[in-house]
Amino acid sequence: MESTCLYEGKAKRIFTTEDPDILRIAYKDDATAFNGEKKEVLEGKGRLNNEISSLIFTRLREAGVESHFVKRLSSTEQLVRHVEIVPLEVVVRNIAAGSLVKRTGFARGTKMKHPIVEFYYKDDELGDPLLNNAHIAALELASPEELSRMTEMALQVNQELQQVFEDAGIDIVDFKLEFGRKNGEILLADEISPDTCRLWDKETGDSFDKDLFRFQQGSLQDGYETILQRLGGR
Amino acid sequence: MESTCLYEGKAKRIFTTEDPDILRIAYKDDATAFNGEKKEVLEGKGRLNNEISSLIFTRLREAGVESHFVKRLSSTEQLVRHVEIVPLEVVVRNIAAGSLVKRTGFARGTKMKHPIVEFYYKDDELGDPLLNNAHIAALELASPEELSRMTEMALQVNQELQQVFEDAGIDIVDFKLEFGRKNGEILLADEISPDTCRLWDKETGDSFDKDLFRFQQGSLQDGYETILQRLGGR
Ligand SMILES: Nc1ncnc2c1ncn2[C@@H]1O[C@H](COP(=O)(O)OP(=O)(O)O)[C@@H](O)[C@H]1O
Ligand SMILES: Nc1ncnc2c1ncn2[C@@H]1O[C@H](COP(=O)(O)OP(=O)(O)O)[C@@H](O)[C@H]1O
Ligand SMILES: [Mg+2]
Ligand SMILES: [Mg+2]
Repeated sequence: MESTCLYEGKAKRIFTTEDPDILRIAYKDDATAFNGEKKEVLEGKGRLNNEISSLIFTRLREAGVESHFVKRLSSTEQLVRHVEIVPLEVVVRNIAAGSLVKRTGFARGTKMKHPIVEFYYKDDELGDPLLNNAHIAALELASPEELSRMTEMALQVNQELQQVFEDAGIDIVDFKLEFGRKNGEILLADEISPDTCRLWDKETGDSFDKDLFRFQQGSLQDGYETILQRLGGR
Repeated sequence: MESTCLYEGKAKRIFTTEDPDILRIAYKDDATAFNGEKKEVLEGKGRLNNEISSLIFTRLREAGVESHFVKRLSSTEQLVRHVEIVPLEVVVRNIAAGSLVKRTGFARGTKMKHPIVEFYYKDDELGDPLLNNAHIAALELASPEELSRMTEMALQVNQELQQVFEDAGIDIVDFKLEFGRKNGEILLADEISPDTCRLWDKETGDSFDKDLFRFQQGSLQDGYETILQRLGGR
């Protein structure tokens, strides 16, 4: 099968397939944090993220969320629809942590009355800055209709994730989504994994996410493995 | 006349008057920048800002913008209505400069198709961070109605300022507003002066604003004096 690497990112490689509408995503074992300043290879991370993301996108499909996800292909690979990525990182927050604490002064762990949706410019050179709707319009990154559609979908994903993780004894503190365009429609794209979520044990408050790596709080693979198991994965 | 200093800020002192609804603002000669890191006393700055701000608020009153401004009292003082300040700095931008360049990557000097309105949290300890509407709601800083009212008023102020400065051969690049609550209504408050605006000569591109002080580009007082004279002030 002809296949060229279209793009190599920090966590994944994207390959073409025989079908121009379909891409193969291969998850890597590379871990990066603080905009690439901290780097390491963590064996098994690619598999864990692929399994967890496949599982979550399958659940979201069942809940009616339209996404790029086609199917899991192997332990580290999946097939997705080729979309034009909207260069925004859409963050949903249920509990204050990370940059929300610095920005607002809310104490870490404060429960938000309503989920907070944020748009960051997906631009490593600019350091992924927060944008408001006027910035997004000026930069022509998305139309107002696309912005409200992404907000609506992000909130729906949040509802589904809260339920999925509730059953697993885990608080979904916050997470990052990416969206893409396909035939004039907005599809959920990229990944949903412990690399892109903050996940806290409801009982102990322990982190099962990339903060394990960011702040050297324990084995990342053990944390991700816990998530996969609690979600009923293989 | 009984008078106590209610608040001393970086640029002004606020005093009570016999009328509990009315405050006296005394402009200081202190110049500060970079969140207070850079400091100097610049003789005459207080007078210049008071004269310019009084002049602009008078023009805005004529244009129907409701504000705290009562009247100029002396060369360094004015009387204003006592409002409850909304802890937001409302920034309007017509041309890219300063933090907008860093955030968006627009080249300095790029003209925006539509003015950009931004809300910053007025909190020196947090470093006046950018907020979006969801943050403002979560922090309960302003209601959605107040937010749209402030946006609408900010854009109206922008239209008036563009006209005022156009006639003076000056581009109003961006400016910061503060608003306050009085009897359930939103009033424009604080000051509009070269301390709170970026003002560029239309011909030469020279700055006549606090950037003179921020980046040691020349005499601040000369720049502010130019503004006062071009606005037809004393
Ligand atoms: N369905 C898709 N079609 C096209 N590109 C996608 C799709 N899903 C994700 N991508 C993009 O592929 C890249 C994934 O690789 P990743 O290692 O996460 O990159 P990055 O370092 O940019 O975060 C991202 O740029 C992401 O936006
Ligand atoms: N009409 C008003 N009523 C009450 N407070 C006001 C009014 N106008 C301005 N203020 C507040 O007075 C202070 C002005 O002083 P300033 O030196 O600019 O302070 P700061 O260092 O906080 O910017 C600001 O905190 C401003 O919000
Ligand atoms: Mg990524
Ligand atoms: Mg001030």
